[in-house]
Amino acid sequence: MKISKKTISDSFKSIQDKICASLEAMDGQGRFVEDLWQREGGGGGRTRILQGKIIEKGGVNFSEVHGKLSPKIAKALDIAPGDFYATGVSIVLHPLNPHVPIIHMNIRYFEVDQGVWWFGGGIDLTPHYIYKTQAIQFHNQLKQVCDSLDISFYPQFKKRADDYFYLPHRSETRGIGGIFFDRLNTNSSKHSRLELFDFVQSVGNSFFGIYKQQVDGTLAIPFNTAHQKWQSLRRGRYVEFNLVWDQGTKFGLHTNGRTESILMSLPSRANWEYNYQPVLGSMEEKTQSLLIKGKDWINE
Amino acid sequence: MKISKKTISDSFKSIQDKICASLEAMDGQGRFVEDLWQREGGGGGRTRILQGKIIEKGGVNFSEVHGKLSPKIAKALDIAPGDFYATGVSIVLHPLNPHVPIIHMNIRYFEVDQGVWWFGGGIDLTPHYIYKTQAIQFHNQLKQVCDSLDISFYPQFKKRADDYFYLPHRSETRGIGGIFFDRLNTNSSKHSRLELFDFVQSVGNSFFGIYKQQVDGTLAIPFNTAHQKWQSLRRGRYVEFNLVWDQGTKFGLHTNGRTESILMSLPSRANWEYNYQPVLGSMEEKTQSLLIKGKDWINE
Repeated sequence: MKISKKTISDSFKSIQDKICASLEAMDGQGRFVEDLWQREGGGGGRTRILQGKIIEKGGVNFSEVHGKLSPKIAKALDIAPGDFYATGVSIVLHPLNPHVPIIHMNIRYFEVDQGVWWFGGGIDLTPHYIYKTQAIQFHNQLKQVCDSLDISFYPQFKKRADDYFYLPHRSETRGIGGIFFDRLNTNSSKHSRLELFDFVQSVGNSFFGIYKQQVDGTLAIPFNTAHQKWQSLRRGRYVEFNLVWDQGTKFGLHTNGRTESILMSLPSRANWEYNYQPVLGSMEEKTQSLLIKGKDWINE
Repeated sequence: MKISKKTISDSFKSIQDKICASLEAMDGQGRFVEDLWQREGGGGGRTRILQGKIIEKGGVNFSEVHGKLSPKIAKALDIAPGDFYATGVSIVLHPLNPHVPIIHMNIRYFEVDQGVWWFGGGIDLTPHYIYKTQAIQFHNQLKQVCDSLDISFYPQFKKRADDYFYLPHRSETRGIGGIFFDRLNTNSSKHSRLELFDFVQSVGNSFFGIYKQQVDGTLAIPFNTAHQKWQSLRRGRYVEFNLVWDQGTKFGLHTNGRTESILMSLPSRANWEYNYQPVLGSMEEKTQSLLIKGKDWINE
């Protein structure tokens, strides 16, 4: 069976649909609002935004774009210029309750002429408050998704997430990491195109269940304005990461991408306070102390 | 008289002192909190933060740093590597009342070995709500400061501000611009080092009076939560500009600068709303429609 571009984009659209339906059911109040958009150079997308009871602001985007690769972008990607095709699903959810973590998921497929193609993606978690059992559960679930195809994936992709979701100017990670992979193909792995496609789909399909467990484990924890203040400061860091360091955001904003779809990743509310230091021994300080690169959540 | 590095930095420190004293007097409630910091590679600074009644969050920073220019930075600046020296005053004020504009001011001096040196700086205004008479007054005052040395400065520096304080991904200016200049020296202008130093000082010394007039003209305008919501959205754009496009911020965050001093430019509170569109005919929409590059505030 040939895994065509259409096969992949149809599957991604279906994953978007399933996730949106599940998130609406979980939220119990919010309904996704959809914007269909077209890209001048070719293709378009389905941006879906949820503002609900559990999810204060969330985006679940699908896009499928194609066109000519500019020399500049080809160079940045270290490939020959040509016609490109890219499709993906991208998710960021900002929950209302500060004890519930922010989550990000992305699956994508990229192809240029002459048989160059790869899959990429990942899932990572940004708790405002880190609960260790939740963090361990999260990483165990990701490990399970990875192990189902290749036991070398989890350690490899976990390290990439640690390296990627990092704020050098703060010397802290964005959250507790997760998995991140790119340029996954038959050259960079020992797996077939079908196996890799299956893997990427299983990442997409695992997303809702993984987040549901995070929500179920934290939603009942009561919160007050002090928790919300901390949440807003952590969201500020999320904004800093996305606007300063995130390659996808930078790429999109510098190449005339659809701004509102790209910046759906930003929270509805963020705060900055000069030189804020959490109180010693507080939950906030505990979380801060855990935002370190390379922490082995499963085995420590 | 030789205008030495010390002459310049002493003057800049004195400008910082005068501005801080004036802002405290104007605010009537807030007091600057000072952080003295040292840079590992050489030099340091005086970061001063105000949280007051009129100024919700403001920073007035002085810094004086020196060391070896890295090859990468020398290349970015298009100069030969060597020992560098840089001193400057940098200000961002975020007022509480949404009718009062955000203001930014910077004056700086840069020098490397072998007699390469220049001044840079500027003042620009970001009203949440644009009041034309205030905007005209602001530009007239800047023109006056510029004209006192060179009548070619205002049009030239105004254009540079228009080009610089622009968000391509939003197709809008950060505010109503102002003046922006860089690499001002005896080669790029017909003026002496002393004249240019005097000019930069007069930019610094004009700052408080210019802002005071903006505050006096707008502070009495009552505001409600709808105005504050718009203010938060405009602050979101300010964050986007500073984190995505501002060269100084990017440079600082990528070269291990003092993060808290660099990011003092961010507001205490910012909001993002997916695809927000101001109501047709509203004050918000009127402001939005005026955020266009190249508007001639004085003569139109």
